[in-house]
Amino acid sequence: MSILAVGSIALDSLETPFGKREEVPGGSATFFSTAASFFGPVAIVGVVGEDFPEEHLEFLRGRGVDLTGVVRQSGRTFRWKGRYGFDLNEAHTLETQLNVFGEFDPVLPPQLRRPDFLFLGNIHPRLQAKVLDQVEARPKLVAADTMNFWIENTRPELLEVLRRVDMLFINDSEARQLAGEHNVIKAARAILRMGPKRAVIKRGEYGALLFDDGHVFASPAYPLEDVFDPTGAGDSFAGGFIGYLAHRRRDLTLDGLRQACIAGSTLASFCVERFSLDRFRDLRAEEIAQRLAAFKALTDFHEIPV
Amino acid sequence: MSILAVGSIALDSLETPFGKREEVPGGSATFFSTAASFFGPVAIVGVVGEDFPEEHLEFLRGRGVDLTGVVRQSGRTFRWKGRYGFDLNEAHTLETQLNVFGEFDPVLPPQLRRPDFLFLGNIHPRLQAKVLDQVEARPKLVAADTMNFWIENTRPELLEVLRRVDMLFINDSEARQLAGEHNVIKAARAILRMGPKRAVIKRGEYGALLFDDGHVFASPAYPLEDVFDPTGAGDSFAGGFIGYLAHRRRDLTLDGLRQACIAGSTLASFCVERFSLDRFRDLRAEEIAQRLAAFKALTDFHEIPV
Repeated sequence: MSILAVGSIALDSLETPFGKREEVPGGSATFFSTAASFFGPVAIVGVVGEDFPEEHLEFLRGRGVDLTGVVRQSGRTFRWKGRYGFDLNEAHTLETQLNVFGEFDPVLPPQLRRPDFLFLGNIHPRLQAKVLDQVEARPKLVAADTMNFWIENTRPELLEVLRRVDMLFINDSEARQLAGEHNVIKAARAILRMGPKRAVIKRGEYGALLFDDGHVFASPAYPLEDVFDPTGAGDSFAGGFIGYLAHRRRDLTLDGLRQACIAGSTLASFCVERFSLDRFRDLRAEEIAQRLAAFKALTDFHEIPV
Repeated sequence: MSILAVGSIALDSLETPFGKREEVPGGSATFFSTAASFFGPVAIVGVVGEDFPEEHLEFLRGRGVDLTGVVRQSGRTFRWKGRYGFDLNEAHTLETQLNVFGEFDPVLPPQLRRPDFLFLGNIHPRLQAKVLDQVEARPKLVAADTMNFWIENTRPELLEVLRRVDMLFINDSEARQLAGEHNVIKAARAILRMGPKRAVIKRGEYGALLFDDGHVFASPAYPLEDVFDPTGAGDSFAGGFIGYLAHRRRDLTLDGLRQACIAGSTLASFCVERFSLDRFRDLRAEEIAQRLAAFKALTDFHEIPV
């Protein structure tokens, strides 16, 4: 089944307690597509500036990512500069340069207008809506992500998008903010009343909660002794989730979505082991299979007899 | 199998965003024994002042808690005053009055000196050691709890106790502090090198991690829409954990300890639904059985084929 994702393609500069990196590849479309590509093909729509190194696009192409929807525009590429303290759950933005991303106007090439799975990465809700408008047949699943900036500054447009999507991926603090509810369970249920039938609440090192059809599924994060760089973990989660659903399960059953959560947690856990996309550069299929299995060992127990 | 717990018996005054309570029963021995009592008998050793209402002791006796090790001493009962904000994971201590607890000198009645399971609640490590000294036969499991105050102020004595216990229950922030490691997985592994073969890292609304013999088990917290008062959740966890092990499983297998984690999470989840011991006053066995089963539904998925 086909996957289309729209989102940012960026050059990130990062400081963590474990080191620094300047102008490494980042952005929601980049992490999403790289993670999804471990399960099968994925296409992205996005924009880069004249200065975006061709080698990063080559890397994505080499992983089977369809870049026909990526435009190279005159000007500089979107840049994000961030710092993490020892509490790696929270990023401190030092600088954002929108550059060519500021006038991004996503146009879907004709052959990408009928995706089975559509992921609307964390961009302006007006652009998310514009992508939805160009889709010619109802996808099996439309999922979106968002963040505090859009919740604060473009709430009406975001609520409009939420009415049109099947699923929302969102951080726990942003879920609380969107719903105006401190309790995360109440917040998730409030979000389900805004439109999406399903929601994944991402909780960083504490894992994720999937809300689906009255059921809740709790997926832990993989217990890592060394987390280097949390940038892109959320988008890698979404990429692993949708990649697994589209290419392995090909269904939207309760069990399929739960396994997809585990696949998302697995790809996110690899993402944070090194800077930027680095862990994905030599990640092998057997390593993914082993970690998927490790999640079962991490959570399994025999049912307690009544 | 028999359980003995030593710990505080207190009168708590609490402020939460949802209300206030004055001088309600609290303390580690109180919560531990009440939670454990849902699986079978438990004995406690502790001290109360002249002013401790007899009705609270009556409640414990009525639940099958053996109070022959509880001394009523001249003076006032230990009091703790705390406040919680909307982030219920963290308690802000407003006042601590040690009162009779300041001269607490635990003496085990002869018939309580051979417990199968011994729980050393969060008290001065010197007193924890004193209880250990009075035990006449090696219990099947000696578990302890501790907190930041003892880690900061009585570290050598605490390390001495850790060398003598099989298992530690500890909050994640306190695990980090004890181990001097920010990463909680590394912190847990460092704690296992201090003596205990097993550790449970309690993470409040994010659940608990069990470290045991090289394995990690992640137990989520039960997803509650209304958390009223987190006081006692950790001790209720330990009480449910050890109560289940001693009276239902009667073994220390990997699966037994995992189920015990779920039992602990279950009792903790009931504890926080109302103030003080209130939720335990009318809690029925069927409700516990239902919630134990709900944890399976919350975490279950089919193994992902390699």
